[in-house]
Order: sequence, then structure tokens, then C-alpha cells
Amino acid sequence: MTTDRKEEFYDRLKGIQAGMLQVGDRYLPMSPNLVEGDKTIWFITAKETPMAKEASKGTDARLVLSSEDKGLYADVSGHLSVSHDREKLDEVWNVVASSWFEDGKRDDDVLLVSYQPRSAEVWMSEGGTINFLYQMARAQITGKHPDLGSNFTLQF
Amino acid sequence: MTTDRKEEFYDRLKGIQAGMLQVGDRYLPMSPNLVEGDKTIWFITAKETPMAKEASKGTDARLVLSSEDKGLYADVSGHLSVSHDREKLDEVWNVVASSWFEDGKRDDDVLLVSYQPRSAEVWMSEGGTINFLYQMARAQITGKHPDLGSNFTLQF
Repeated sequence: MTTDRKEEFYDRLKGIQAGMLQVGDRYLPMSPNLVEGDKTIWFITAKETPMAKEASKGTDARLVLSSEDKGLYADVSGHLSVSHDREKLDEVWNVVASSWFEDGKRDDDVLLVSYQPRSAEVWMSEGGTINFLYQMARAQITGKHPDLGSNFTLQF
Repeated sequence: MTTDRKEEFYDRLKGIQAGMLQVGDRYLPMSPNLVEGDKTIWFITAKETPMAKEASKGTDARLVLSSEDKGLYADVSGHLSVSHDREKLDEVWNVVASSWFEDGKRDDDVLLVSYQPRSAEVWMSEGGTINFLYQMARAQITGKHPDLGSNFTLQF
């Protein structure tokens, strides 16, 4: 069950364009990238950004997700650090480039940041978004747990 | 310009089903409700929820928004408190009930929570979501500000 939920979490995350990543005192929109067979969440940034500075310290950070479209809401805790794995950068860059850039040209300034999730509180729809949101609203108002939308914690 | 942006912010927020609200150590998905001619963000909860307990203290809290659909990403700082304004509860309830409940029946347990935004860092698309996300990705990778998606701070 937990494995299924973890997979479901990654599967939905794959479809999300941007989450809000804790960077020092701020939350910044960042595009999460996933690579087949690897549970790290990868971000791409440039070398002198606030995000790069924060990641270079190696620090704990939250990633807050809310996607109506994918029926996924999550409060993720994890560890942010810079990766110097050039092979991984190539892999992630291929994902990014195919999404964003037709020419796929890569600047020397590009920095690969790894986000290692540790735990997450997750809300997920299990019967379509509308039904999920209805259940969420009901749960908020009646103080009861949603009947269909599920709320659980993942340990990675 | 600032007034326009503030209005645009509220206008897009109106279309968002749920944001992630800081409640103690957690971020919980909550549906923001807006009432015409009033800049408070209203939440509805039940009396014994963690959210109700937090709001009853009167506390500062963050509201983290990310909506691909509306092209709005925001990190809002504000003040959370319980409201005992019955007239306002009626107004907000009408908004909630018309969205969620056909019968509009209201439980005695319902609690109105007011969220007074103080400031917000906002990212907003100005040329369609796809273009915005492209610009965001470009900005992240090149370290330059997005050309079309705008990033600014609002004071409320």
C-alpha cells in the first residue's frame, strides 16, 4: 500500500509544472524534474541564483505542492544540495530541454540541484478532482476526514 | 500599477480551489473564499480542527499558492484569526454553499476564520500559462529575470 502510494505520488508529481520550494525565507516556484528509476527530485538553476546559494550550503527545505489538475496536495520535507554528477545533469537536461527548449542548448552556468525527500504529508484524490474537492470542503466544515480524498504520510 | 496588480491577484485567487495554509508545523490544503468588496481571505472550518485551534490563538501564517491553471504563484504572509461576525459568516457561507452543497445546510460547528494578508511575493503570467512557464524555466536556467512572467511584491 505504501509503495503504491509512493509511486502514485511520483507519478502525479511528474505532471506538475511547478511547486513552491523553500529557499531561505522565501518560497519560490521551481519546476521539479524526475528521472526514471531514481527517487530524487531534480531542479535546474543557474550558478548565482538565491536557489543556488541556498543549495550549495546543503540544507533542509520544504517543497509545497498544490495541483488541482493532478489532485495532489503535499507538504514535503527534504534535503537540498548541489550535485556535480555530470551524467545525471545530462539526463535531467534532456528532460528539461525536451520540455522547454527546441534547440536544447545548455549554458555553462547551469547548476543541477538535488532534492532528497525525507517525508511528506500528502492529500490525494481517489475519485476525480471535483469529488475530491467536495470531500475536502465537507471535511473542513464537518471536521471529519474526507471520505474519498486520502490524507497520509510518506517516509522516503 | 500596484492597485491593478492587487486586483489581478484577487481576481486570480478567486479561481483557485485550494492553497496550502501554514497551520502550526504543517501546511494544509484550504479553500480560500473571497467576498465582494472586502480584501480578507476567508476560510471555513469546524470548531475542533487543528486549523481552528491555530486560528483561535490569533497567529501569523503563510499561505502558499501555486496554480498552473490561473498562472499564479505566491508566498503570502498574513494574520490568521477566528471571526465571530455572523453576517460575514452568512456571506461567506453563501459562497461556499453555492460551490459545494446543493442544500446549503449549515452545521452549528462551522467556524469562520479570517486571513488578513500583509504582504506577498507573487509570480504571475502575462502572456498565457505556457509562455509563462517557458520564461520561468529560462529564467531559472539563465539566472535572468523572466521576460514576460512578472515577479513582484504586494503590500496589503
